[in-house]
Parts: sequence; structure tokens; C-alpha cells
Amino acid sequence: MEFSFQLPCWVADCFEQTPPRLASREDRMRLVINAARENVQKETGGPFGAGVFDDKGELIALGVNLVVPCRCSVLHAEIVALSLAQNKLGHYDLSQVGTTGDYELVTSTEPCAMCFGAVPWSGVKRLVCGARGEDARSIGFEEGPKGPNWQEALEARHIEVVTDVLRHEAVEVLKLYHKHNGIIYSPDCTSHS
Amino acid sequence: MEFSFQLPCWVADCFEQTPPRLASREDRMRLVINAARENVQKETGGPFGAGVFDDKGELIALGVNLVVPCRCSVLHAEIVALSLAQNKLGHYDLSQVGTTGDYELVTSTEPCAMCFGAVPWSGVKRLVCGARGEDARSIGFEEGPKGPNWQEALEARHIEVVTDVLRHEAVEVLKLYHKHNGIIYSPDCTSHS
Repeated sequence: MEFSFQLPCWVADCFEQTPPRLASREDRMRLVINAARENVQKETGGPFGAGVFDDKGELIALGVNLVVPCRCSVLHAEIVALSLAQNKLGHYDLSQVGTTGDYELVTSTEPCAMCFGAVPWSGVKRLVCGARGEDARSIGFEEGPKGPNWQEALEARHIEVVTDVLRHEAVEVLKLYHKHNGIIYSPDCTSHS
Repeated sequence: MEFSFQLPCWVADCFEQTPPRLASREDRMRLVINAARENVQKETGGPFGAGVFDDKGELIALGVNLVVPCRCSVLHAEIVALSLAQNKLGHYDLSQVGTTGDYELVTSTEPCAMCFGAVPWSGVKRLVCGARGEDARSIGFEEGPKGPNWQEALEARHIEVVTDVLRHEAVEVLKLYHKHNGIIYSPDCTSHS
């Protein structure tokens, strides 16, 4: 009747060490890529990180992939970050929060079909992606039926999409997970890569 | 750093009153429609219910829409039911559970884009839907960029899709929510219907 998840302890340190504002897009992306890397190195989940930032670059919530440790296929980094951000700000629609309602979801890898579908509901105004879906697929993750026109579909809903931000650094984390024989948790390929 | 949700208290009664096995598809659908109706009447969330059942028709987990009360856009009935089922069964991929790995997601309304994307990750073998996406749209919910070939996309992943099961009864719950002036929580139309 109840469900809960908790971020790994190290995320609190990561949060505390984050400057009050990360003014540049690259700095925000670097933070979520670093979280993804820590998640692999500390073996606390999959090779993905995501963060919700306000229009001043302040980190509202940081998420990492928790599918395997929390035994829940829903807990992708984006879902974790959005849930925590909405919980913190007290609204299910971030576009209704504060004076501007201007929040950004930064994710170390392009969202899968589920997280893509979660973006419009969340009320974020911008989606910023590091690695591409094809990069995730190259290490074995099946990113799901998202369709080739996913960016246009979001933009039609007035959600700006920015891709390939620090893609190379984000891909390095995916490769690291592959090297560590991280679990590829897609159905039909539930095994070590 | 932590996130949790809890089903409304009445769901426990609903669970206890459910027979050990619901052999027919219609009986399983009736249960989730009843949960959706209760959720509207008791004002504990949106007009949607979903359940995960095993291959003998045993109810594993029951979910209702909790977006507004839990202030989280992710908490659609399907996401709630899948998270609780995986938590109960101890695996992020239901196809890996038990001897057959044969679990079914029954939902009172066709999944939105997010829940559609969540289905393949969950490892369910079958998706059974009551009302259609167009029925949800008719009371103001914007179901997101799912694409017209969503059923084929799931079937290509070996997930059987069954639609229009007790559609009329499911639509009645959507109409009831509309009549109650339930909150339509889609961004850009966050207001009372």
C-alpha cells in the first residue's frame, strides 16, 4: 500500500557541494553526468543522472537511475528527479510554481519512451540532453517506442529541446558501465552486458 | 532525498474484499474501474485505476491516480500499480518473476504516452484497457505524444494488447469526474474542467 525510494547517501554530499547557481548549461550538464558516473562507480544504480534546475540555474532536485537497487522499472533518473522536484516545490505541474514557472530538466542521456512521455506532464519548459538514445542502445539498453519525431512532439507542446550537450563526457559514463558489466535491465535482455 | 506515496486507506478494504482469483478479464477490469470510481467519489485522486494480475487472475497490486493529492505528475494509476507490484514481487522486471513470468496490467483507461512507455520496461506480458485515449481527451486530459501505432509498437515487443473491455463502464467514471469538476492536471490546462 506504500512505496518509497531513497537516493544513495553520496547524493547528499553531491548536492551540498553544488554551487548555489550553475549559470551555464554545460555546468548543469556536468553535474548530472558526474552524478551518473558516481552511480556507476559506487554501484548504486544505472549509468544515468538527471536534475531539475530553476531559471537562475539553482539545482532543485538531483536524480540517478535506481531501477536495479530499488527493484522498480519506473525509477529512471528523470522520473526520480521530477518526482523529487515536484515534491520539494509542492506542485505536480512545475509550470505553475513561482513567478515564472520556468524549470529545466537536464538529463545525461536522451529520455527513453517513458521519460519522454513524462516530460509534458511535469510542466518543465526545457529538456537538455547529453548522450543520445543510440549511445544508450550501443551498450544494450532498449530505449523503447519513442518515435523519430520526439523532439518536434515536445516542441509542439512548447518544451524546448537541446541535445548533444557534453555528449562525449556522457557517453564515457555509458562505456564505464559497460566495462563494469553493469546490469542491462531491459526486458528480453535482463542479463549482464 | 526521499520520496514516498501511499494509497488511500479505502484501497486496503478494496483489496481485502477482492476474491483470491478473478478468472475473467471482465471481472479484473470491473475491479479497476470500481477503484477508479471510488477514487473520484472519495476525492482521493483522478478518475483512473489499474491493477497487476498474475496468470491465475490473482490481484498483485492495485493502483489509482494520485497526481493531485501526492503533488506528483508521475503518479498515474499504471505507474502506481506497476511500482507496487514490482516492490511486492521483488523484481524490476515482472517477466523474470515466478515460473511463468506472466503478469497482466489492467487499466481503466488506455495508457498515456508516459505509461505506454513504462509498459515494456515493466515486463508485463499483456495490457488490457477499458476506456480509450479519446475518452480521456473528451473530458480534457491531454494524453501526450503516443503515436497512432502504439498497439503495434507494444505487440512488436511481444506484449499483447486488449482494448475496449467494459469501455462503457470506464467512460462513466470519466464522466463522473467531469461532473464533479475534478482537476484536469495536464499542463496548459491546469484548472477545473
